[in-house]
Amino acid sequence: MAAENNNAAATIDSPLKRQREEDEQPTNGVSQTLSKDPLQPIHGLSSVIPGWFSEISPMWPGEAHSLKVEKILFQGKSDYQDVMVFQSSTYGKVLILDGVIQLTERDECAYQEMITHLPLCSIPNPKKVLVIGGGDGGVLREVSRHSSVEKIDICEIDKMVVDVSKQFFPDIAVGFEDPRVSLHIGDGVAFLKAATEGTYDAVIVDSSDPIGPAQELFEKPFFASVARALRPGGVVCTQAESIWLHMHIIEDIVANCRQIFKGSVNYAWTTVPTYPSGMIGFMLCSTEGPSVDFKHPVNPIDENDGQQATRPLKFYNSELHSAAFCLPSFAKRAIASKAN
Amino acid sequence: MAAENNNAAATIDSPLKRQREEDEQPTNGVSQTLSKDPLQPIHGLSSVIPGWFSEISPMWPGEAHSLKVEKILFQGKSDYQDVMVFQSSTYGKVLILDGVIQLTERDECAYQEMITHLPLCSIPNPKKVLVIGGGDGGVLREVSRHSSVEKIDICEIDKMVVDVSKQFFPDIAVGFEDPRVSLHIGDGVAFLKAATEGTYDAVIVDSSDPIGPAQELFEKPFFASVARALRPGGVVCTQAESIWLHMHIIEDIVANCRQIFKGSVNYAWTTVPTYPSGMIGFMLCSTEGPSVDFKHPVNPIDENDGQQATRPLKFYNSELHSAAFCLPSFAKRAIASKAN
Repeated sequence: MAAENNNAAATIDSPLKRQREEDEQPTNGVSQTLSKDPLQPIHGLSSVIPGWFSEISPMWPGEAHSLKVEKILFQGKSDYQDVMVFQSSTYGKVLILDGVIQLTERDECAYQEMITHLPLCSIPNPKKVLVIGGGDGGVLREVSRHSSVEKIDICEIDKMVVDVSKQFFPDIAVGFEDPRVSLHIGDGVAFLKAATEGTYDAVIVDSSDPIGPAQELFEKPFFASVARALRPGGVVCTQAESIWLHMHIIEDIVANCRQIFKGSVNYAWTTVPTYPSGMIGFMLCSTEGPSVDFKHPVNPIDENDGQQATRPLKFYNSELHSAAFCLPSFAKRAIASKAN
Repeated sequence: MAAENNNAAATIDSPLKRQREEDEQPTNGVSQTLSKDPLQPIHGLSSVIPGWFSEISPMWPGEAHSLKVEKILFQGKSDYQDVMVFQSSTYGKVLILDGVIQLTERDECAYQEMITHLPLCSIPNPKKVLVIGGGDGGVLREVSRHSSVEKIDICEIDKMVVDVSKQFFPDIAVGFEDPRVSLHIGDGVAFLKAATEGTYDAVIVDSSDPIGPAQELFEKPFFASVARALRPGGVVCTQAESIWLHMHIIEDIVANCRQIFKGSVNYAWTTVPTYPSGMIGFMLCSTEGPSVDFKHPVNPIDENDGQQATRPLKFYNSELHSAAFCLPSFAKRAIASKAN
């Protein structure tokens, strides 16, 4: 879940303290701001457990996941959000945007591999792929495993996320090095509106939560833009929250998607320990045209194929692909109730 | 994960404070001990976020999940462990043993339904079932949905867990009301050793973590006792930790089980938001005899069957049953490496 107008997170810092920190910090660029004392409470770093980062947000009231901080590596404020990187004691390096965990080195494989290969393994020979958000480069890294792909556009709103990822997460930002990638810094909604109709085989929306500016990315006009930019029988995969926390949001997304996407509309999920409730879901839809059966991948990517030799898939496999569409009964019933 | 010699949890309270609380508390029975000030740090209640409970343990170093506490409903100390019940702000009532979350009203369905129906739906007409641990009654509630079952033995070591559950979690402890249930308060290891050979169709081990006294429940002699108590082609399902946190423990369990269970040996998992890493796994094994294919349930329990009319299944269904055996590649490889 990298940057796309992320502002969902609340923090528990006082406005006064926050102002002080803003005064001390650069407003753009990747100038590194290190805390003199990593245990000192600062914006983004929790004041609730000294030396720990706690993720507290109105999106998941009454609960918080905390990670122990070894060292703060970067703190900055872009035009869109607060950006922080820290070395955790047991989850590797961690990227935080506006107080919300975007990725940890330990479990990022689950999100990046699933949001990418669920759509790309569901269609034969994907050639043109668009990524909205995804500024850390992880989705690009996964797309680049597919040898059929000829062109990868990415539209990320926040350049600081890209720069910080290249500096601190080289194994993730490696995705930017693929010569098929064109990076566009800008608004994903505008980029899609300007795209030529029927351009893409697949669109992957690696967005933040649907409260605040990113709300657009969960609404009908945005889905209509995505559908327009896709070829007939093209596919989209969007980050779509957790069935444990946001069933009502998911029901709305499903209802919207059923009106826009005349091919198929499906919900899948994966485990990600450092995301709220320990899981995250995806909406997978296709446009009218050649039919797409998301539950049965037609374009398998096996462990020895398209791996660029150095980095085997850690998480995704074809069995898990099909399993990801099997939902607990409470979620299955809620989603079925939106089946027009 | 109810009581079976649970002592895995570390707390961050000082020994001095803990001693003071022990002095104030009853050592058995369900005498209710309410804190005068729910925000006051007390054993079991975190002192790290005032008014929140934080789960910190050497079993999952460097991370902690926290729930906001509305009211502490019970605190006691049994002969085996500290027992606490609180009303959380967003997860309903919560049962804590030795500082570790055992269940919340909001997500207990996932664990109880999966640990029960994964084994019972994998064999035709289960008649005799043994539950080790499970003192909250949730597994019993699920076993009782199966109309073929004639006898349900449960052996729970800690009577306080049973009593507290009956008092504070009536929708879970309802399982004890089934006339087929016989409750035995005692040590599960001894109970199994004394059981007549070949008695049970299924054994469900609803245990705590394998550090401290419960360690026995993850070792070869215990599995051998289970195998002995099962009929040929009988099945066992044991709580088996998280692939994100305890892959090395799981590999050991798999290796042990492959030596003991000559039918099949499988690993499955489910999402449970309030368990560490947001998931929990199960070992499912069968003894030599009629073959058991756990991945394809032969004894489906559908939404209208054996539901005692009032409480439909919230989580389990046949699709999810099969999907639970599909593992991320890193776990699949590690487990396959133990395939003798």
